[in-house]
Amino acid sequence: MKKLNTSPISGMQELLPPAQAIFNNYKKEIAEAFHLHGFQNIETPTIDRNEVLFAKAGGDTEKQIYRVIKTDESAEDSDQSLRYDHTVPLARYIVEHESNLAFPFRVSQIGRNFRGERAQKARFREFYQCDVDVIGRGELPLSYDAEIIATLVDALKAFKLPGIKVRVNNRKFLSGVLDFLGVADYATDIMGIIDHAEKVPAEKTIQNLRELTIPEETVVKITTFINVHGSTDELKKLDFLDFNGTRIAEGFSELKFVMNELGLLGLSDIAEADMKIVRGLDYYTGTVFETSIPGYEQLGSICSGGRYDNLASNYTDQKFPGVGGSIGLTRLFAVLGEAGLLENAVSAPVDIAIMYLGDTRQPAYELADKLRASGKSVDVILFDKKLGDLMRHASRIAKSGIVVGENEVKSGNFMLKDFATGEQTPLEI
Amino acid sequence: MKKLNTSPISGMQELLPPAQAIFNNYKKEIAEAFHLHGFQNIETPTIDRNEVLFAKAGGDTEKQIYRVIKTDESAEDSDQSLRYDHTVPLARYIVEHESNLAFPFRVSQIGRNFRGERAQKARFREFYQCDVDVIGRGELPLSYDAEIIATLVDALKAFKLPGIKVRVNNRKFLSGVLDFLGVADYATDIMGIIDHAEKVPAEKTIQNLRELTIPEETVVKITTFINVHGSTDELKKLDFLDFNGTRIAEGFSELKFVMNELGLLGLSDIAEADMKIVRGLDYYTGTVFETSIPGYEQLGSICSGGRYDNLASNYTDQKFPGVGGSIGLTRLFAVLGEAGLLENAVSAPVDIAIMYLGDTRQPAYELADKLRASGKSVDVILFDKKLGDLMRHASRIAKSGIVVGENEVKSGNFMLKDFATGEQTPLEI
Repeated sequence: MKKLNTSPISGMQELLPPAQAIFNNYKKEIAEAFHLHGFQNIETPTIDRNEVLFAKAGGDTEKQIYRVIKTDESAEDSDQSLRYDHTVPLARYIVEHESNLAFPFRVSQIGRNFRGERAQKARFREFYQCDVDVIGRGELPLSYDAEIIATLVDALKAFKLPGIKVRVNNRKFLSGVLDFLGVADYATDIMGIIDHAEKVPAEKTIQNLRELTIPEETVVKITTFINVHGSTDELKKLDFLDFNGTRIAEGFSELKFVMNELGLLGLSDIAEADMKIVRGLDYYTGTVFETSIPGYEQLGSICSGGRYDNLASNYTDQKFPGVGGSIGLTRLFAVLGEAGLLENAVSAPVDIAIMYLGDTRQPAYELADKLRASGKSVDVILFDKKLGDLMRHASRIAKSGIVVGENEVKSGNFMLKDFATGEQTPLEI
Repeated sequence: MKKLNTSPISGMQELLPPAQAIFNNYKKEIAEAFHLHGFQNIETPTIDRNEVLFAKAGGDTEKQIYRVIKTDESAEDSDQSLRYDHTVPLARYIVEHESNLAFPFRVSQIGRNFRGERAQKARFREFYQCDVDVIGRGELPLSYDAEIIATLVDALKAFKLPGIKVRVNNRKFLSGVLDFLGVADYATDIMGIIDHAEKVPAEKTIQNLRELTIPEETVVKITTFINVHGSTDELKKLDFLDFNGTRIAEGFSELKFVMNELGLLGLSDIAEADMKIVRGLDYYTGTVFETSIPGYEQLGSICSGGRYDNLASNYTDQKFPGVGGSIGLTRLFAVLGEAGLLENAVSAPVDIAIMYLGDTRQPAYELADKLRASGKSVDVILFDKKLGDLMRHASRIAKSGIVVGENEVKSGNFMLKDFATGEQTPLEI
């Protein structure tokens, strides 16, 4: 009988070993893709100073931060919290270690972040994020925006998805358009409405825009604008809207450059420009992108990011422009599982269970060592029970089993039993 | 100019990329050794309920626990804290998921734990621990005690140490002896003195024991006792002390069994029994062990653990005996670094930097993809500067470099420059 509640706290992921093995494998493959693209891994502490963490966080994020307090201190003494993303501690890291880093700095971070959100389906309070960023000192060529996307696309191959689509936009372009249309004062509201446009019927978006009491002609232009998407050629449709202005020109040219660069990287088939892509976060200043699975758009963006022109402005007067993106692994694992898009759980993470019978523990140990040297995961079952009991346990924990009895030891011949098929084959190491 | 303090919080590890790469490699090799020994990896949430975390923690540990509080809640509402080890959340996990696990359950955990200790050299407030445990339901054969040690010894091979020594004792034996000597009431004090005996001169230990006002004869017996160490044969020296009693017999027989089992596992050369090994933690009830590096004993134990007969007594009436051990990776990395026992830092974690010249970005991307497919980590440097600047940057981030100019693209022949030797060789993929 349980004496107290032993479930994990609501909003936390806790997996059984077979699911954990799959999760770990995805994490490993993402890390490998980042490494192959020349990104250098770092880890920042989970706990950081409030002056660092709260400097950039606003609104909801700020409310969601977990403060930490040592038991032997009063709450007033505390000025530390758990990091809620990788970007804020990265800014601190860059400024702190600047003289020891080579810029542009390709950096990856894979770790757990924390947000005290209201617990709901596929929203986690502790979650793995897998981030890549390139940070420049003073300047950062625009080609890196495409390189970040290419790296994340490679990392997503770990999931063997039915397909992916990367949708790209540019914040300069969008905010330039809003300026040009004379509705810059409503920019936050309008961006919110655009960000939401795919989750509601088209009429609802129009209605939301009208509620801002902006001219009807402007509502029409915005609505027409946000429905443009596709290849760079498709963007010509924007011409009839007669937008002009320096920011618009700059943003549009950046967007076209990034789209072209994605073509050089062989990603024309999966990348498209899309005027509906906004990204919620304030700090993006240029390229923004989201990634979805065609046919599974309801899962939302599975990977997103963008360009921020001044990463570390809270810490230093030096300019560190950056571009980055992130795979929210814990959430992605949960939603792919629900959508039936995960690999089947490995029923047994262990390769081989060895069952010893009689006085054969030492040869069983030696056999296990040989198999391990050849890369097999081996559990020597160390209880002294009947063969039937040993077999039952072995088939629960391992893919195959080997019985090590006195005859096998004498002859040096062992049989490997495959628990899925029941087939027995002579063991060859 | 920095606008605010960007150093990590005191007591936190923060590494530059080359050191992080070595650290990650150790972590990966430890995980691989655990996997090869049939241990199934799990992860518990970093944050858990206070009723879970505080149930087992006593004394100093309790004071060191970091409580967590959401920003939008008052301190009074909080009943959550950061885990301070892997064992307490494991107990909760076992009880929660019991019906989905096969026992004996070989389980590994590798992650960050938190203790708000006073910051001092090689003491970290956030630290990686790499744990293996075997949990039985109802019972757990003693052979697993040796298997845990063998697994950890294999994992420590990652560090290519000059040597290691595992010292083993049994808490039943020790506490039985103290019972027999009639000093059970002083057990905690005496164990503390024994635990400290190696850090002070022998006279100091005798003096400490005398201060407890126990009979001089008992002081002599304890002192003689704790100086016994070596192979199982050496333990015969204990005979003249005339100890007897059920617990002593049981503990001594367990100790001899584990030593013999370590022999079967091929570890006779590095394992010895040692009566000075106590382990501070209350919950150990049988085997205890510590690991040191011969010639570097001042570094302390680099890996330790033991048997606990009732892991989950706070959560359930069912009995889950276990045995486990842990490598404190963050601390170990720090002390090995100070002792000069770490691998040399990889100066450049990236294998190859590609420098494109002129209109060759697309072939540069294609070459990078080919090299990545062959397992190389490749950074395509995406700024358009002079070759000298490109070379300087390339040699800071990568081991080798390839220039992709128009001639190279035309001929399809690329030269690989090794930055350490300056040597150039034709590239073969």
